[in-house]
Amino acid sequence: MTPAAALERTLHDEIPLSQAMGIRVAAYDGTSLRLTAPLAPNINHKSTAFGGSLYSLAVLCGWGMLYLKLAEAALHKHIVIQESDIRYLLPVDHDMQAECSLDATALKPFLRMLAKHGRARLSLDVVIKHHGRPAVEFSGRYVVHG
Amino acid sequence: MTPAAALERTLHDEIPLSQAMGIRVAAYDGTSLRLTAPLAPNINHKSTAFGGSLYSLAVLCGWGMLYLKLAEAALHKHIVIQESDIRYLLPVDHDMQAECSLDATALKPFLRMLAKHGRARLSLDVVIKHHGRPAVEFSGRYVVHG
Repeated sequence: MTPAAALERTLHDEIPLSQAMGIRVAAYDGTSLRLTAPLAPNINHKSTAFGGSLYSLAVLCGWGMLYLKLAEAALHKHIVIQESDIRYLLPVDHDMQAECSLDATALKPFLRMLAKHGRARLSLDVVIKHHGRPAVEFSGRYVVHG
Repeated sequence: MTPAAALERTLHDEIPLSQAMGIRVAAYDGTSLRLTAPLAPNINHKSTAFGGSLYSLAVLCGWGMLYLKLAEAALHKHIVIQESDIRYLLPVDHDMQAECSLDATALKPFLRMLAKHGRARLSLDVVIKHHGRPAVEFSGRYVVHG
């Protein structure tokens, strides 16, 4: 099973709402993770994506990125969202696509801190685009511990 | 139909995810609104409430409060979440209960602004408690327009 497929199975098995939302792991290339969800189960009163669905997709995109990075480092840890903020810039009237990037430069000190203290924090940004423009900007602070 | 029942029907009809989450309008007394949701459909990998579900319940609690206040003022407007932040203080391992309060002192200048400009912003705080202690603190900025 690819890491992306393993992540999708984990999300669906352990967070049933991710299945109700139709979340899929669309792509992962080692530095960037993309999650998608169809509009229909996530629609709101204005026929655009519900703000809670956009948030859920974004928070799981950051969570999934950490899940994959920890798996690559053969670390079995808990990943918890501690706090986050989100800005809705444009309504999203089609299927949602969230993207989170994390390069080795940001990852290294995080893994070092984790090895030293058994616990570390990392802030991750997630963006949901609409016709190529940022529609939702999310920033989440995650805590990883043993 | 009571205002609380009308709000619950609106949420379920217009935001299908609120139905998948099992959201109920539990109480409304004119200044305070309480929404609830069962843990089961909102559970996460740690058998506590999923952060996205806690967020969704909170954002709809603030939205619902504005919906009720605008209905009382016989105003038919759009209510949109613009930005928000959320802090997870404690895990929630039972049914979720969100509460939002809005008194006349905060409402008056908002309604005056809305009457004057056809558009107004309001920040609302929502808290989700766990055994009487704040477990989640949410603050959302909503925009209301014609």
